Amino acid sequence: MQAFLITFCISDMDLECANQETVKQGLLARGWPPIKGFSKHVKTKVLEFFSQLIKLGQDDPRRVVHSLKAGLALTLVSLFYYYQPLYKSFGVSAMWAVITVVVVFEFSVGATLGKGVNRGLATLLAGGLAVGAHQLANLSGQIGEPIVLGIFVFLQAAVSTFVRFCPQIKARYDYGLLIFILTFSLISISGFRDDEVLELVHKRLLTVLIGGSTCVIISVLLFPVWAGQDLHNLIASNMEKLGIFLEGFGDEYFKMPEDGESKEDRPFLQGYKSVLDSKTNEDALANFARWEPRHGRFQFRHPWKQYLKIGALTRKCACRIESLNGHLYADIQAKREIRSKIQETCTTMSMESGKALKELSMAIKTMVKPFAADIHIENSKSSVKNLDTLLKSGLWDDETDLLEVVPVATVASLLIDVVTCTAEIAESVNELATMLKFEVVEPTVSPEKPETGQPKIGIS
Amino acid sequence: MQAFLITFCISDMDLECANQETVKQGLLARGWPPIKGFSKHVKTKVLEFFSQLIKLGQDDPRRVVHSLKAGLALTLVSLFYYYQPLYKSFGVSAMWAVITVVVVFEFSVGATLGKGVNRGLATLLAGGLAVGAHQLANLSGQIGEPIVLGIFVFLQAAVSTFVRFCPQIKARYDYGLLIFILTFSLISISGFRDDEVLELVHKRLLTVLIGGSTCVIISVLLFPVWAGQDLHNLIASNMEKLGIFLEGFGDEYFKMPEDGESKEDRPFLQGYKSVLDSKTNEDALANFARWEPRHGRFQFRHPWKQYLKIGALTRKCACRIESLNGHLYADIQAKREIRSKIQETCTTMSMESGKALKELSMAIKTMVKPFAADIHIENSKSSVKNLDTLLKSGLWDDETDLLEVVPVATVASLLIDVVTCTAEIAESVNELATMLKFEVVEPTVSPEKPETGQPKIGIS
Repeated sequence: MQAFLITFCISDMDLECANQETVKQGLLARGWPPIKGFSKHVKTKVLEFFSQLIKLGQDDPRRVVHSLKAGLALTLVSLFYYYQPLYKSFGVSAMWAVITVVVVFEFSVGATLGKGVNRGLATLLAGGLAVGAHQLANLSGQIGEPIVLGIFVFLQAAVSTFVRFCPQIKARYDYGLLIFILTFSLISISGFRDDEVLELVHKRLLTVLIGGSTCVIISVLLFPVWAGQDLHNLIASNMEKLGIFLEGFGDEYFKMPEDGESKEDRPFLQGYKSVLDSKTNEDALANFARWEPRHGRFQFRHPWKQYLKIGALTRKCACRIESLNGHLYADIQAKREIRSKIQETCTTMSMESGKALKELSMAIKTMVKPFAADIHIENSKSSVKNLDTLLKSGLWDDETDLLEVVPVATVASLLIDVVTCTAEIAESVNELATMLKFEVVEPTVSPEKPETGQPKIGIS
Repeated sequence: MQAFLITFCISDMDLECANQETVKQGLLARGWPPIKGFSKHVKTKVLEFFSQLIKLGQDDPRRVVHSLKAGLALTLVSLFYYYQPLYKSFGVSAMWAVITVVVVFEFSVGATLGKGVNRGLATLLAGGLAVGAHQLANLSGQIGEPIVLGIFVFLQAAVSTFVRFCPQIKARYDYGLLIFILTFSLISISGFRDDEVLELVHKRLLTVLIGGSTCVIISVLLFPVWAGQDLHNLIASNMEKLGIFLEGFGDEYFKMPEDGESKEDRPFLQGYKSVLDSKTNEDALANFARWEPRHGRFQFRHPWKQYLKIGALTRKCACRIESLNGHLYADIQAKREIRSKIQETCTTMSMESGKALKELSMAIKTMVKPFAADIHIENSKSSVKNLDTLLKSGLWDDETDLLEVVPVATVASLLIDVVTCTAEIAESVNELATMLKFEVVEPTVSPEKPETGQPKIGIS
């Protein structure tokens, strides 16, 4: 299968390229060399694919563990076939346990539990309703029976398919509705041939339960991956990424390009980009996390919505940073004298917001009340005030060209927006800290106090 | 099922609320009134749910059609059970056709085809390999056989599960790998009991093919929903949303709040927000669209990547607009005199970019070469130049407080960014137009020519 996929991917990517080559070389001139070249190309692609797989494993070793767990769960359930007494009681229905394991076993406990509960409940409900439908159809005689059953199957499939479009239901019960349609159809249709419908329902339910609980048990007991923990870490690390950008931004923006170095080779300044597209991932993790029981410092009814709120604010801040980043590499840069006038305040604003975000990220990670974050936010706010005073104090020459002020004014204004965003993030992290009763730990090293008083003028 | 889901949702949402009420009223005081209140509450929620369903249908009637199509496909396939000669040849295996229809039938043709092809090919490959595994296991004697089979099942499940983590494979072949694991396990395990493995593979493959082709035929022939068309429309409508914002922004920003109207009730200015989170949707639609055959003006190898490129640029522009939107409702607004100085140029920049985006959106929708867009972009670019001249010409008083200039400068600078983004979008739409050979239609009404010459001063 893998070999097939690789070939498929390669053929897909290189079709155009290969076509061009064919045309170039002419139909008659084709011979060994192109085939040799192609096989070399395939070799390179296969090697690339394997190195990508190795990287996937190194990036998150839990993926390797998950794969082994999936193999184990499937092998365990297949014992039903191998072990004579078990096989006798279930027969071919044991197949449902195997199917359940393949479909229900997911990366995180929450996703596995969600799918398992959905599958179990949907099988139970659909089984019950299908038995009812079967009884009703029985009343309509031999010719009427398939017609009545056909109508039932059509109606339930159409209605359930439509309900699956409802966003709230799609988020949590989509898989359940799919299994509802599947079980209802299978049992009501099979019932037409098989008089022992109840036994069929019973066997299907039992095998689904066995498959589902095997998944859940292995998922919870062997190196569990908690979606809640992942969401928690994702929110914290997204905040940290913004913090890293902001800490580095000031120096990078005000650095003069004369040292011959290109500004674009700063990978640490590009980390924030992944934050912009993290909504889907956050929503999915929050949906899975809702299914998870109490684990570690996470309760069953953990305030996941608050995490999503913090995530949304972080993305809003990332959007401002995207605009800031555009100014980092802009062709039109303000003159050195103008930039140096506000260099210190802007660098402080950026640096302090960055520190605050990193502090808040650390507070979430360690579940300790953010102590120094407020101080950093105060520092950044007082820098905003300093900037105001600086601008009011008319430090600018009369000859200063306003056109040259615009880029700097924009950066300053975006930084003010970032400070506001950071304050909003801090507020919602504090709300989370109150909800979850974060530990209060006195810091060993006292952070710098808020700056007040007269604005300082940049090194000009 | 639906009733269960509704109750589940409601209980979920209102648990806390209900708890508080219980506490308030005391355990003894509870009687009819709370139950009456609760049942009224449930009624309201059920009514809300139904009105939401009706809205879902009204918003996109294709959803209703899809549900009916799903019901029809399932009813058709269930004929296998009802019709004696068909049942005789397939027996219980006919179940696989039903399962295939339930799982494969998706909203768009591309998604259905993708799942169908994945399921068909994966069943074929896994069936073949499972027969091989079965032959190999046969050689190892009665005791060795289950052990060898167990090892095979474990290894293929673990390896395939791991390969599913690979992002490129996950995007297109995830379902295929799932079915590969499922079929290989089922057939190799069943093979242990059933000597007619080949017949089992043959039956499974045939029923999967019947189910899959039923889905594909109904999906393509009855009111088809093309993912490609949806992606095409989504990209165009996202651009239009940004255009609507930009067309309205100038007037909204420079309007004085004295007319007592709140600035926040402008729903047309909020449309851009959905653009920020459209990446996942675009990626999914592009993945589905790749499976679709030629339809209407879309070929099989349509340049979907170019659509994703335009989408990414649109999101980048939406990010700037998010920042602009922040300034629309900012507490600190620049003074009337300062604002009115750049009002005309900024309004033109915004208006012309908006018009260009709407024109580009229309060009994509109608697949006609964007004619007027370049003129609007030229207009917006010359407004940028006008702004530069205006700022250089020292029209500002010496007494002008720089602090009051900052918000206006920022808005102007963000608008300059928007103009740049719009030009980038126009460039990639033109690339698309060249790739797809968009029609060239001479406009009946000639749009305004680019403004050049001296900058105009705002009404002050």
